[in-house]
Parts: sequence; structure tokens; C-alpha cells
Amino acid sequence: MIVTQSRNHACGGEMKIVVHIDNARQWQEALSQALPQATVLTSEAQTDERKGADYLAVWKAPAHLLEEQTHLKGIINLGAGVDYLLSTPGLPSDVPIVKLRDAGMGELMADYALYGVLHFYRSMDRYAAQQAGACWQPHEVVEKADWPVGVLGLGAIGAYVASALQQAGFPVLGWSRSPKAVKGVECLHGDEGLDTLLPRVKSLITILPDTAATRHLLDARRLAQLPKGASVINPGRGSLIDEQALLDALGHEETPGHLRGALLDVFHEEPLPAEHPLWQHPRVVVTPHMAAPTPLNEAIDQVISYLHDFEAGETLPTVNSDQGY
Amino acid sequence: MIVTQSRNHACGGEMKIVVHIDNARQWQEALSQALPQATVLTSEAQTDERKGADYLAVWKAPAHLLEEQTHLKGIINLGAGVDYLLSTPGLPSDVPIVKLRDAGMGELMADYALYGVLHFYRSMDRYAAQQAGACWQPHEVVEKADWPVGVLGLGAIGAYVASALQQAGFPVLGWSRSPKAVKGVECLHGDEGLDTLLPRVKSLITILPDTAATRHLLDARRLAQLPKGASVINPGRGSLIDEQALLDALGHEETPGHLRGALLDVFHEEPLPAEHPLWQHPRVVVTPHMAAPTPLNEAIDQVISYLHDFEAGETLPTVNSDQGY
Repeated sequence: MIVTQSRNHACGGEMKIVVHIDNARQWQEALSQALPQATVLTSEAQTDERKGADYLAVWKAPAHLLEEQTHLKGIINLGAGVDYLLSTPGLPSDVPIVKLRDAGMGELMADYALYGVLHFYRSMDRYAAQQAGACWQPHEVVEKADWPVGVLGLGAIGAYVASALQQAGFPVLGWSRSPKAVKGVECLHGDEGLDTLLPRVKSLITILPDTAATRHLLDARRLAQLPKGASVINPGRGSLIDEQALLDALGHEETPGHLRGALLDVFHEEPLPAEHPLWQHPRVVVTPHMAAPTPLNEAIDQVISYLHDFEAGETLPTVNSDQGY
Repeated sequence: MIVTQSRNHACGGEMKIVVHIDNARQWQEALSQALPQATVLTSEAQTDERKGADYLAVWKAPAHLLEEQTHLKGIINLGAGVDYLLSTPGLPSDVPIVKLRDAGMGELMADYALYGVLHFYRSMDRYAAQQAGACWQPHEVVEKADWPVGVLGLGAIGAYVASALQQAGFPVLGWSRSPKAVKGVECLHGDEGLDTLLPRVKSLITILPDTAATRHLLDARRLAQLPKGASVINPGRGSLIDEQALLDALGHEETPGHLRGALLDVFHEEPLPAEHPLWQHPRVVVTPHMAAPTPLNEAIDQVISYLHDFEAGETLPTVNSDQGY
């Protein structure tokens, strides 16, 4: 990823910003340095201090942080997914929301997706199973042309991932709710597009936002549309996949099911509960929601640019609460 | 990889070719089709039939196949590594040898190397260990700029791999015995070059040929030159690494050593014996010499092109037996 070094274009004006995110102190320091006129607080500051903020820069903020503010000019969501923010009680309906757009996340997500596709394409899942029994058995590598990959979701990050996989030599079929175009990618849309895509792909990557329309998009019926032996890679949102249907489709160690395996980064409940069967399934790789952490430097640059545009009265690419992204 | 469709440029002349490789019948069929005037036999043909061949196209051929021939015009090694062929008793010293050069192998090897680098860079080794204990613990992803990768060996395939990793965003340091230049790669050479490279890389990829000069190149002393926590990826030749020294450097499950982990495709003895400790080491991934199988279509095209050049009296890029590659 590229780390821009342009953090010193100060917005000039005085403003109060409250930051809520795991590493809020790093953000506070970076924003204070870039915006010397601004008052930058973390959510750990006293309530009285926090009140009257101009901007919130938040990731999974508790409701009271939203409710206590009275004259916000804008909310900056410190990630690409806004589902958490939009469902937080106390979110004012009249304050514009912007979100981080692919702040290096495209590359992180693309690397995760490519790793996952290679994992199945190059039979690394089989070799891992064989290693346990000291079994030396090479498997054929088919041409990449015979390993089409599906990408569900063609937003900024999904389109980046689709392009990266296409450049890595795989035929890529992309899907989105409304028509999109991505160079080198066969783009499909709508219910019929999904009917067309699923039976054709060997590996499926899900990078859709969590909305009412995408919840359990991959249910038992949709998973059954994938060809036998297909693999599923989900770095998007846990809600996209019906986890019980996925487990059923994967089958058991002794009786393999319709699907070959899955690489999952997101789950209905996170952290994934210790007793959840996905942890122990021999053909599931679990990662702890790490596919696309936001690289701090790039994210900070974006936030500063947003603040600048807010203050200057520029038109911003705001989140549409009804669509959910 | 690109599969060329130009297999029908017949060489014209009559000739006898004996093929020895696992899937010899596929080769026999493809070569017979492309060279209708030629007699193409597999090594399973009767001895009398095999004798008097013009060309051998072989991979790990037994000594008798070489010894029985009396007027060979050329030997085509059906792979990039010629160590096995050059050490086979009965190899005539006066017959030119050519080898397959990166017949799609560059891309296969680059994908294997990239998978390996991402495996460690993205902490997939740690997540695999955590999964066994249902442990949800994300690890930081550093900038790729802070994850330099070393590539030992800058032949056709090594250079391809180095370029691919550089294009994937990693700083790449390349090393070869004699000076080489690869765009975007910091190229070092000789003993001093290796002294410079090893302490600087987080992941090391070995793609050198098996020669007297490369045998146990990575011994205890060299492995100790890598920084603590480095990982080793060997899709090259098993002889490059002193396996006992590698095991010592990896340490045990309870007492981690100097190195973090290894992804190994090649070994001193193949198949890797079932009782070998590398199979069971928790921080070693074993694959069964599958990093770069030769894609048949491309390899066949190369062989036909070689035969054409042999017959036409063209100058060929022959193997230098003294150098060993």
C-alpha cells in the first residue's frame, strides 16, 4: 500500500473533533499535529469536554457518544462498513456521514482474497490435511483459465479485489445489485446475475456491505448453486452467509459435502465463540477479522481531507442511510 | 499462464524421439500429432525399438535409457533443473543438452512464493495455530515496505519470481553467484552479497539450481544471519538447505528458535520419509514438490521448438555441464 506523506495540509480553522476507535490516542496525536488549530479529544475525555463537538471520527462508537452531541457538522466513519454506525441508537438523521474509502484496504483485501484463492487453487488445503498423515501426494494444477473466481460486491474495495484477481490470471465474474463495470471483469447484477454467476465459479469471494438486502444472501439454496468442490472466501461481513447452511454444505471430515472448504474472516458473532463448530471444522480456515485493518497513515490522510472539505463547504460523498452504504 | 496454440509448426523431417516422464503417453500423443513424420516412443517401448534414437526428451530417466543410445543428436531435459540428468551414469559428454526454460514455471513458482510470503506476512501461520485453540487474536499488518523479501537465484525463474514479488509491493533483494540485473530488484552477488542480503530480509525464497556450489548454501551459519523471526520458503532444491540446521533454527513448539517458520516444497530425500521430523514440526508447511509442475501445453511447444532448431542446425541455449545449469 502507498503511504502518502501529505498530512500537513492544515485545514486552518478551529474545530472540536472527538475520536473513538481502538487506537484513539494515535489518531489524536496525528490529527492534532496536522490540525494545530483544532481541539482533538478521544472518547475517554470528560463528558463536558466532549460536548459541542463539530465532528465525530468513530469506529463502533457507543450510542451515548452520538446522543450527547447537539451541533455536529459531520460524522466520519473510520472504516468502509457503516452497518454498525447506521444501527446505533442516537445517530442523528440530519448529520452527513462519510466513510473511509479503500484506505489501502483494497490492497489488504486483495492480498487476503488472492491468498485464499491460491490456497484452494494450489491445493494447499489438501497438502495441510496430508501433512498430518505424512502423506506425499502432489495434485494437478489446472490452468487458471479453468478456475473462474466470483466476486460478490463491486464497491471500491470489491472492484479493486476483482481487478487484482484478474491481473493475477484468473477469469473473474463480478456481481453487484445494480449494474457496474470493471475492466477485464465479467460484471453481472441482480438476482438473475447471481443465478448465472454461482454455478460458474470455483472460488467465491464475498465483499458486500451488511444491509437488509445482503443478509444471508448465501443461504442453503445459493450455496447449492455453486459447483461441487467450490470454495468460499468471506472477508466481507459475517451476516452475508448463513453459517449453519455453510456448515451443512461443507459436510463432515468423513463425509465431505458439496463445498470443498472456506476461508472466513467475519462471522455472525465476533469474536467467534470458542464453542462454535466453524473453529474445529477441518476444511474451514478461521481468521479473526484481520483481512483489511485500516492502515493508519492513509486513513488519517483521508480524514483530514474530509475535514477540509466539510469546512470548505465542498460536496462530500456521503453515506446513504436508506441504502445502507 | 499463457498456453500457446502453435503446436502445429511441424519440423518436417523424420526422426526418432524417446520420451521418459511420468505422463509419457500424453507427451507421445502430443508430439506425434505435431510431428507426423517422427517416430515418438515412450521408454516403455521394446529396447530394440528404442535404440538408435535421435532425441531423448526425459525427466529423471534411468541410466540404461542413456547408455543404450549411440547416435543421439540432442537431449531435452523436461524440466528446468538438470542436476538429476547431469549426475546420471551413462550421460554422453558430447551430446548437447537443452532444458525447459520457464515453461509457465515462472508464474507457478511466483504464485507459490507469493502465497508463502503472504502466509507469514499476514500471520496466517499464527492464525492456523490459534484456530486449534479457538483463539481470536488479530495481529498487526506492517507496511509491505517493512517486509523485505530475499530471492536467492536470479535465473529465468528466479528473476520472474523476484519481479512478481516486487510488483506485489514487497521490497525485493535478489542474489546470484555472478552479477545480474532485474528491474526494481536490488541485485547482490557473491559471498559478500549474501552476507548483506540475509540480515535484511523477513522472508527468504530459494530458487537456486542444485550444484556443488549451492549444496547446503543455507547452513547453520547462514541461517543465523537471517533476522530473528524470519521465514524460509524453498521451492527450489532440497539440497540448498541443511535440514538439521533448519530444524535447529526453528526450535520446538515450546521453545521457539531463531526462525519463525518455513514453507518447503523440496527435500534431501523425496518423497520426504514419513518419519522425518519436518512433517510434524508445527511451524513447517510441507508440500510434495508441487511448486512448479511443467504445464504440458507450454512444455510441448518448447520441445517442438527445440527439435526444430536442432534439425535446422540452429544455435541452442545448451546446458553447461561444468556449471551445472
